[in-house]
Amino acid sequence: MDKERLEKQLEFCLEADREKLIKRQTLVSDGSKRENDAEHAWHMALMCILLGEYSNQPVDLLKTVTMILIHDIVEIDAGDTYAYDAEANLSRRSRELKAADRLFNILPGDQAKKLRALWDEFEEGKTAEAKFAHTLDNIQPAMLNNATGGKVWKQRGVRLSQILERNKNTSEGSKVLWDHSLNNFIMPNLESGMITDK
Amino acid sequence: MDKERLEKQLEFCLEADREKLIKRQTLVSDGSKRENDAEHAWHMALMCILLGEYSNQPVDLLKTVTMILIHDIVEIDAGDTYAYDAEANLSRRSRELKAADRLFNILPGDQAKKLRALWDEFEEGKTAEAKFAHTLDNIQPAMLNNATGGKVWKQRGVRLSQILERNKNTSEGSKVLWDHSLNNFIMPNLESGMITDK
Repeated sequence: MDKERLEKQLEFCLEADREKLIKRQTLVSDGSKRENDAEHAWHMALMCILLGEYSNQPVDLLKTVTMILIHDIVEIDAGDTYAYDAEANLSRRSRELKAADRLFNILPGDQAKKLRALWDEFEEGKTAEAKFAHTLDNIQPAMLNNATGGKVWKQRGVRLSQILERNKNTSEGSKVLWDHSLNNFIMPNLESGMITDK
Repeated sequence: MDKERLEKQLEFCLEADREKLIKRQTLVSDGSKRENDAEHAWHMALMCILLGEYSNQPVDLLKTVTMILIHDIVEIDAGDTYAYDAEANLSRRSRELKAADRLFNILPGDQAKKLRALWDEFEEGKTAEAKFAHTLDNIQPAMLNNATGGKVWKQRGVRLSQILERNKNTSEGSKVLWDHSLNNFIMPNLESGMITDK
């Protein structure tokens, strides 16, 4: 047993714990608190396993779940950047790259390389797994925002055009899930005025 | 596309969201809050992927991760039962069985059956996957309790004999991880008096 290897792995596991402190804009389904990155990743991973059949292309589920579990880990250093905050999004990429360099390299070389490659693949969004993970990354908060009556969209004054721009690639991972999200999570909130048409 | 099937799946996904509200006794690594079931499951799933090489027997990682993601879902109805609360543990099994009957049956038949079988397998603790999942279920809070200076053990007056009884099967999933946990997470807290020897 390689003691140094295990210690590096556990150091990463302990560092990862801080994802539980990174708050997102989304509220949990009863509206009682903001969701954090660890909760969001757990929810997406569960949804990936249950909804994998709706991916446009066949996906390797273990690979997709692993990608999902670590997709936001860079936010430990870089913070959560709200999807509709244009200014913060300008510096997002450089902040997240720096975080990825530090965090994944806590792991032993082989695992550092593997997880970094998965994170890069997610960021690039080109493979079937990355596309489906991105679809879930967009569907999951839409489901919660609808469950909490569109409150978060209203508070932030989010426009339909912004949501559609943000979701321009969501159907590439799953047409079925995007159609459902648009018709059942998004459009009813446009009709009720929680999302603005302007 | 079977609309009713998708609706059942998404109803389950929305119901599962309530795991984010079920608090455990464990504190997160900076001690700022109690961990909840969703965060705990995310952390264990990540640890499963990174530490799978230490399982005594080879495990199917996707199966183990899926088991981990849903292992505490019954607590949505049954609540979290603290490992060292003897009285609450007497009624735990019947409360959790009732919850399993309700929750998994929200899903379409095939998925309800599959997830219920995985949950039963975890509860029985006999397969390689269930044993490794149980090891992680015990190692993860020990790692956090040690990171927060043994505060939770001290507050609850936990005795070493209780920890050893609770962990009597932990080495069956991974001897390496149990040895590391005993020597690095548990024993230093006995030495410092955060765990009592009585």
